[in-house]
Amino acid sequence: MIRIGVIGFGYWGPNVVRNFQGLAACRVVTICDSNPSAQERARKIYPSMNVTGNSSELLTSAEIDAVAVVTPVWTHFELAKKALENGKHVFVEKPFTSNSAQAEELIELAEKKHLKIMVDHTFLFTGAVRKIRQLVDEDVLGRLYYYDSTRVNLGLFQHDVNVIWDLAPHDLSIMDYVIKHKAQALVATGACHLNGHGAGPLNGREEMAYITVYFPDNIIAHVNVNWLSPVKVRLTLLGGEKKMLVWNDLEADEKLKVYDRGVHLGNANGNGVYDLLVSYRSGDMWAPKVDQSEALKLESAYFLDCIINDKAPFNDGMAGLRVVRLLEAADESVRQRGKLVEL
Amino acid sequence: MIRIGVIGFGYWGPNVVRNFQGLAACRVVTICDSNPSAQERARKIYPSMNVTGNSSELLTSAEIDAVAVVTPVWTHFELAKKALENGKHVFVEKPFTSNSAQAEELIELAEKKHLKIMVDHTFLFTGAVRKIRQLVDEDVLGRLYYYDSTRVNLGLFQHDVNVIWDLAPHDLSIMDYVIKHKAQALVATGACHLNGHGAGPLNGREEMAYITVYFPDNIIAHVNVNWLSPVKVRLTLLGGEKKMLVWNDLEADEKLKVYDRGVHLGNANGNGVYDLLVSYRSGDMWAPKVDQSEALKLESAYFLDCIINDKAPFNDGMAGLRVVRLLEAADESVRQRGKLVEL
Amino acid sequence: MIRIGVIGFGYWGPNVVRNFQGLAACRVVTICDSNPSAQERARKIYPSMNVTGNSSELLTSAEIDAVAVVTPVWTHFELAKKALENGKHVFVEKPFTSNSAQAEELIELAEKKHLKIMVDHTFLFTGAVRKIRQLVDEDVLGRLYYYDSTRVNLGLFQHDVNVIWDLAPHDLSIMDYVIKHKAQALVATGACHLNGHGAGPLNGREEMAYITVYFPDNIIAHVNVNWLSPVKVRLTLLGGEKKMLVWNDLEADEKLKVYDRGVHLGNANGNGVYDLLVSYRSGDMWAPKVDQSEALKLESAYFLDCIINDKAPFNDGMAGLRVVRLLEAADESVRQRGKLVEL
Amino acid sequence: MIRIGVIGFGYWGPNVVRNFQGLAACRVVTICDSNPSAQERARKIYPSMNVTGNSSELLTSAEIDAVAVVTPVWTHFELAKKALENGKHVFVEKPFTSNSAQAEELIELAEKKHLKIMVDHTFLFTGAVRKIRQLVDEDVLGRLYYYDSTRVNLGLFQHDVNVIWDLAPHDLSIMDYVIKHKAQALVATGACHLNGHGAGPLNGREEMAYITVYFPDNIIAHVNVNWLSPVKVRLTLLGGEKKMLVWNDLEADEKLKVYDRGVHLGNANGNGVYDLLVSYRSGDMWAPKVDQSEALKLESAYFLDCIINDKAPFNDGMAGLRVVRLLEAADESVRQRGKLVEL
Repeated sequence: MIRIGVIGFGYWGPNVVRNFQGLAACRVVTICDSNPSAQERARKIYPSMNVTGNSSELLTSAEIDAVAVVTPVWTHFELAKKALENGKHVFVEKPFTSNSAQAEELIELAEKKHLKIMVDHTFLFTGAVRKIRQLVDEDVLGRLYYYDSTRVNLGLFQHDVNVIWDLAPHDLSIMDYVIKHKAQALVATGACHLNGHGAGPLNGREEMAYITVYFPDNIIAHVNVNWLSPVKVRLTLLGGEKKMLVWNDLEADEKLKVYDRGVHLGNANGNGVYDLLVSYRSGDMWAPKVDQSEALKLESAYFLDCIINDKAPFNDGMAGLRVVRLLEAADESVRQRGKLVEL
Repeated sequence: MIRIGVIGFGYWGPNVVRNFQGLAACRVVTICDSNPSAQERARKIYPSMNVTGNSSELLTSAEIDAVAVVTPVWTHFELAKKALENGKHVFVEKPFTSNSAQAEELIELAEKKHLKIMVDHTFLFTGAVRKIRQLVDEDVLGRLYYYDSTRVNLGLFQHDVNVIWDLAPHDLSIMDYVIKHKAQALVATGACHLNGHGAGPLNGREEMAYITVYFPDNIIAHVNVNWLSPVKVRLTLLGGEKKMLVWNDLEADEKLKVYDRGVHLGNANGNGVYDLLVSYRSGDMWAPKVDQSEALKLESAYFLDCIINDKAPFNDGMAGLRVVRLLEAADESVRQRGKLVEL
Repeated sequence: MIRIGVIGFGYWGPNVVRNFQGLAACRVVTICDSNPSAQERARKIYPSMNVTGNSSELLTSAEIDAVAVVTPVWTHFELAKKALENGKHVFVEKPFTSNSAQAEELIELAEKKHLKIMVDHTFLFTGAVRKIRQLVDEDVLGRLYYYDSTRVNLGLFQHDVNVIWDLAPHDLSIMDYVIKHKAQALVATGACHLNGHGAGPLNGREEMAYITVYFPDNIIAHVNVNWLSPVKVRLTLLGGEKKMLVWNDLEADEKLKVYDRGVHLGNANGNGVYDLLVSYRSGDMWAPKVDQSEALKLESAYFLDCIINDKAPFNDGMAGLRVVRLLEAADESVRQRGKLVEL
Repeated sequence: MIRIGVIGFGYWGPNVVRNFQGLAACRVVTICDSNPSAQERARKIYPSMNVTGNSSELLTSAEIDAVAVVTPVWTHFELAKKALENGKHVFVEKPFTSNSAQAEELIELAEKKHLKIMVDHTFLFTGAVRKIRQLVDEDVLGRLYYYDSTRVNLGLFQHDVNVIWDLAPHDLSIMDYVIKHKAQALVATGACHLNGHGAGPLNGREEMAYITVYFPDNIIAHVNVNWLSPVKVRLTLLGGEKKMLVWNDLEADEKLKVYDRGVHLGNANGNGVYDLLVSYRSGDMWAPKVDQSEALKLESAYFLDCIINDKAPFNDGMAGLRVVRLLEAADESVRQRGKLVEL
């Protein structure tokens, strides 16, 4: 029986508590939040749990085996570090840390102490992303061409991060999971209309950004994130040589559509520009059934499984670090108006 | 009665002929295409017109007042130049020319000869774009934040240009028409999967590209063009301080939706990051009726009006030149992996 | 402080408990369900409430002022009757009763005892239906032409009722609320493919049905309900002389669209069939913002308000009876293959 | 070489002429329309054809082998009869005739004269309907449950027929083609808001109607047609035991979606209503590629093939008669407020 402590009971924390609590192999023993009204909510829903405003109490408790850190990103490092130092496995909200140096330090510490780090890239446990990964693994899509995601909506503005650190971790972690090559370089552009006005461009927090990531083999990824869109869009295109895929996460059903479509360019058999032979393939579309299980439930169970059976999670500290490096690079590129940043 | 000669009877030429022919103030007298089967098609539909494969005949004819150049872009300059030299007004397919030097030379020549150049940026005459421009003119949207367009589909591959020169002229000309500031700089990224393989990266023709254009006042425009998408998307978001707009050109009805949505950031009245006040406005949506007239019909009539009444068309050579400069810059930026190109 | 007892803690009961419990003016004191696992669920969520399997205990308790009956329809009458006899106000799940005689008896009993009956036609408290009613009240739509609803999906099969008693109460109660005339007659057709096979046509329970209701002034309502549809549809059209409205309840945003569209037939000014003048009006579309408050929350508060301030609820026993009469008539008509049933 | 005469050059006639003219095996020799402006249009497009306002001339001409009757329905009988009497094959616009007696007379006459009648049920030649029929033929859908079609839009009002005779022939001919059983009886309801006011109910022409058709094996078809809808809907659901299908004809791509969804009701293994076992199947969705060829082109070629090779067309006079009988029955039922009409 793994005993869990959860720090942070704001927007996402209650989901983390509920999912861990629903699993037979663990028990949430303590919930911590510095906000008294969050403590009150926690007590009302879970009268039998220990609820505290003091994270040190939780982090040093001998009754706790693993800690879930579900707090703002700038607090992740200190909390996770203390948890590891006290011999606890950690489950950390995305993005993993505020910078890559912090991530590296935590990874090193966990290794030394033989503890697990899992970064909560929840989307990797959704039925849609697992199916996409399966289609890539089974080479259904063929050689990949591109990954193109649009993730825009109105708000919710974050107080401590820009739109890149808020929305792009989803896309960058999925991209990292699906494209098996190592990202090589990145170009990002963006703009800031409401945040940080009057405080100089470097202090502004972008509400919209466009990130291009270069991979080997001409594979390219593009992420469009925007807090100032009148409509919500969650649309990802994944192009491959054999098949192409559209993932619309706002569809209740038919989130994933796989198209038997493509282009073949033949050899020019003549003597000029007009002799290029282009043939199009436009066949059936297929929407595979996608598992509707709650992603966080699967992820929670996987965390326990990794602890109990001493497995290395695929969404470990290294996965979190790769995403943080992309976020850092995107910030740097945006502020230098699209400068190419090598990774 | 303006007498018109049309060069090029491939995909778009027949529409140009049909629209000019439908107007009382002009007559199409000659159609020219070097392709015999295009000539045959022209003769079948318009048995009474002169059909030729010799453009010189048309360009030097004393019976012709204006020439429509509806041919591949690399031929525009020579044909338009000869037309102007022979005292004819020109209507040129977009993009105007293969480079900005050509565009400048044609503009200068037309001025000297007191002739009109009109670049066929057809989209500017659609009901949707005219309505968007009206909403901007009437300050319904308020201060603009961004212009974000996605224009993707499978093919049609062009033999002589990349996806930027094929699809982006639509977006860049609309952006130029709607955002009244002068574009300052541009960043573009892209990839090439099928074209030009084996011929070195500089010879490749991108099938997908992402262009960010910077304007004064933090206004930003982004264009996503892709020939390798399994689905067709024609979606433009235009964000303003007072209202935001979505234009889905694939909708039969309700192409334009204006949202009374926005964000207001109040002053932090306290002492820390959590005191920022964000308020959201989320009101009604309104889909104004959009005129369904054929855009090319309105544009053809406007061309005649400009000639007859000696008016300067708003989609003149300068407008064409501005788009060509953006295309040149995008090409340069893509090939240097997102290098910022000042305009 | 109104003290509430809730009978039934299956699918909908937990929502009823949660909403009443969230209101300051009342307290849920007892939950009753004959199913032990439902009792267990109730105890887990609400450790401080009295949970029982014995409805008599609840119905005769002196500690309870009002009873919510959230059980299968065939049990409504007995439970509501006993509640009224014991001096308790009743909130009854839709459909009100299994037949109109039962409904009439309950209404009479409530009147005699000066108690309130409210039938849980939840949809009447949604932002969409309240806005539709407002548009009708303000004569925005003009003289009504028709109400046309499609409510289809796969399952969920009910064990004790057919698709008419399961899905049509939603549409019939909304129709009754929006069309202010009294329904005159009804025609219904339907089919049964899976239920009741081998047990004779009268024992079959229809999985799909089509109901036409005639009103004065040629107003017509049509309801298409189906448990065997591969896709979920919740679409209502409401046609009026001045405006027409589409309500798509599956849209996250923009559930309601009001169209400035219509037809005007002029007088034939000539001498024959071809002289009829038809003119179409096709103006803007407008999607009013719809309140997103939870309907059941508003309804619960309204129930308390009616009790405390001795108001007659608009969704009272009579409203429930009108819907039950339509359901009875629909059953009769379906079984007689579309026989007209006068109401 | 079949020589064709076409009577009627209004809305649909030009398509018929264009398609026949595009086929190598025939030649359109004469176009007839009583309307001088239609004659003028015909002459402009086809300067080499004989254009006349006198149908007798065409119908008795020795130069014509087959006649296409593309005129209002009330003229079909006289024109087709005269054509057959003069030894010409006929291609008749849908609906075939104004009543079933006329249809029977034409069928008898054609048989006697060994001539072909083809009724222009164009939809049967679309890629979507041919694919649906193929899925039925290959038993992909399994035993059919129902056919449910919604075909609504604003206008276009017809002067001589109600909405049933205008829109329902599409659905009834498709239903007749796809469901291979013989329709047994029919119930129809409808309303009239603008037509025929003041002229008594029997003279009114319905603008909206709902038709239920009963087939053997509990198969049921339902057709919802409406001229007073603010939005255009073309949606057909076809439910079968093994698969279910949605045909949305307004989709540019993916018109047809086949769902691996269904319900299985097991035997009650216990002793009561709650023991019924319902299991749902909810698998993949599949959108087969649908041929985009112009339906009328395939149909025209098929007409010639039937004549040349003396084949009986499947959309012959009998098919036309079956649809006319359904239309007659629907009219009768609507006017008697849903009376069951046996077929």
